[in-house]
Amino acid sequence: MTALPQNPFDDFRDLVNLMPGPDLEAVAAVRARDAQLTKPPGALGRLEELVEWLAAWQGKARPTVDKPLMAVFAANHGIAAKGVSAFPADVTKQMVANFANCGAAINQLCKTFDIGLKVFELALDFPTADISEGPAFEPQACAATMAYGMEALANEPDLLCIGEMGIANTAVAAAVYMGLFGGEAADWVGPGTGVAGSALAHKAAMVAQAVRVNGGKLDDAFEVLRRLGGREIAAMAGAIIGARLRKIPVIVDGYVCTAAAAVVYAARPDAIDHCLFAHVSAEPAHARALAAMGKTPLLSLGMRLGEGTGAAIAAGIVRAAAATHAGMATFGEAGVSDKG
Amino acid sequence: MTALPQNPFDDFRDLVNLMPGPDLEAVAAVRARDAQLTKPPGALGRLEELVEWLAAWQGKARPTVDKPLMAVFAANHGIAAKGVSAFPADVTKQMVANFANCGAAINQLCKTFDIGLKVFELALDFPTADISEGPAFEPQACAATMAYGMEALANEPDLLCIGEMGIANTAVAAAVYMGLFGGEAADWVGPGTGVAGSALAHKAAMVAQAVRVNGGKLDDAFEVLRRLGGREIAAMAGAIIGARLRKIPVIVDGYVCTAAAAVVYAARPDAIDHCLFAHVSAEPAHARALAAMGKTPLLSLGMRLGEGTGAAIAAGIVRAAAATHAGMATFGEAGVSDKG
Repeated sequence: MTALPQNPFDDFRDLVNLMPGPDLEAVAAVRARDAQLTKPPGALGRLEELVEWLAAWQGKARPTVDKPLMAVFAANHGIAAKGVSAFPADVTKQMVANFANCGAAINQLCKTFDIGLKVFELALDFPTADISEGPAFEPQACAATMAYGMEALANEPDLLCIGEMGIANTAVAAAVYMGLFGGEAADWVGPGTGVAGSALAHKAAMVAQAVRVNGGKLDDAFEVLRRLGGREIAAMAGAIIGARLRKIPVIVDGYVCTAAAAVVYAARPDAIDHCLFAHVSAEPAHARALAAMGKTPLLSLGMRLGEGTGAAIAAGIVRAAAATHAGMATFGEAGVSDKG
Repeated sequence: MTALPQNPFDDFRDLVNLMPGPDLEAVAAVRARDAQLTKPPGALGRLEELVEWLAAWQGKARPTVDKPLMAVFAANHGIAAKGVSAFPADVTKQMVANFANCGAAINQLCKTFDIGLKVFELALDFPTADISEGPAFEPQACAATMAYGMEALANEPDLLCIGEMGIANTAVAAAVYMGLFGGEAADWVGPGTGVAGSALAHKAAMVAQAVRVNGGKLDDAFEVLRRLGGREIAAMAGAIIGARLRKIPVIVDGYVCTAAAAVVYAARPDAIDHCLFAHVSAEPAHARALAAMGKTPLLSLGMRLGEGTGAAIAAGIVRAAAATHAGMATFGEAGVSDKG
């Protein structure tokens, strides 16, 4: 007897189906302590929710942000050759060198907020195939890249931030959204690094063509990823899945990173409940993508750089939220009169 | 000849009239450098605006956030005796002790974001007079408290954050807004530390009475402050005015702090152009107050604690913005290809 050929995504389907839910005991412990802290109930607003979210997914009654990691995934895309970006494809490699030399925005933000930074280069000399002409990946290659994305968890961060770099990847992300959620290319395509006018119309036409030649909207989330995605998006989808299993909450950066979360969401909507969406990007369709999944971003700062820059700022706020919960005195400890 | 009796607010009126404008050369220098940094133009969104704002008001082509200070002003209010807060008036002093013992939310946030913290106690044993029965202050006392607020600048911070603590001070702030901008008490009054139902209606009635017995809406901003304000609000108004003259940008916290900025705004609208509004509070009328002055807050996190907690988070973001501008490589330095 020979074994049946296995679908390379089956392992991920299994992982998604096995995902643990939130740790409700840890959440209850956070709420009980919060009620004793020297402030009116609810007065820290979203910060209190962030502490509960950390507790739920770390499974800790006293959640920590002691070892946050920013994982930046960099990849190249065949569709860059079709002129969908304002910058040449060489810039992906040049920016990876800039990360290594501490010259990019993400370096400054990680330094400011004391977040570890690791950059994952994904075969930059071998772009995925041009999605406007056919599928991005072979199935095995896509699944292997998802598995590689879990490398971001190797040093056991207690909070994972995901970011990306890849010339043409807003076009790829738009195709992924359209493949998952349907609609028109114009609904999902935006300026990215700064394309406008006829170049923007060309970008939308390329995205529409990519979705058309790859079979249109599909019910199989991993097949959308394989046909319309790219290496950084596949790696981030793997990192999101792996983080859930290892009790590591995830902060998702902007438009491109959210496409990775959308793949996992399409496989199982509650499979991204451990993800916080850092901000709504100035890339117009990001708000649409978040709304399609019912997610409320933490920040709205008009940012559209990628690299994880929005996630780094959100991580600073999450750390501050954890610090208030851990460090504040209770009414009893401080001798402060409780509500009259 | 005897000197004419001087109005004690005349010095502040002079200072407001003498206020310097933005340093446009510094802003131009920031823009020129920003255009060379390794990112698409505008991609850092509001962060880029924050760097320009720092440059404009520090008067520095390379603005800094090396020595930020959180100044928390604490005061008591005669109107607390009328039951407008969910907490007893003793809590102001108890919370000041909690600040000294590093037990409050603001302590944890200042530690997280590396912001100096100084608490100014404003005669806590001597509340201002009950504004629902007459003016809060004698003119000299109000002007002296404004002058005292400038003590926050003594250590020459390069960024000043203002916060406050004072049981009943959301009622006082509501009265100040109504005295400055008109409208009904219900437009300006909210739950504060957590009053609701008939207690909230009572709070609104007390605010309406305070404004009525003190002469209604007035054109003289400082007279509104004297009649309807409190010591922390007067001190913060003084700090805002003084900071402008010493080239120190100011981050204003929430609903109560914004009332101090509103007094200065009413004296001269562009006199608060050096102020950043950290966040929109969950206190419902804060959005109305910001809109009345045409100000867009940086954050919206559902917070309503005061103490400077929103301003501390905003200061973390401002520092991050300054760090990107100072630390990023240019296209030339990094060997990154500029836009195609």
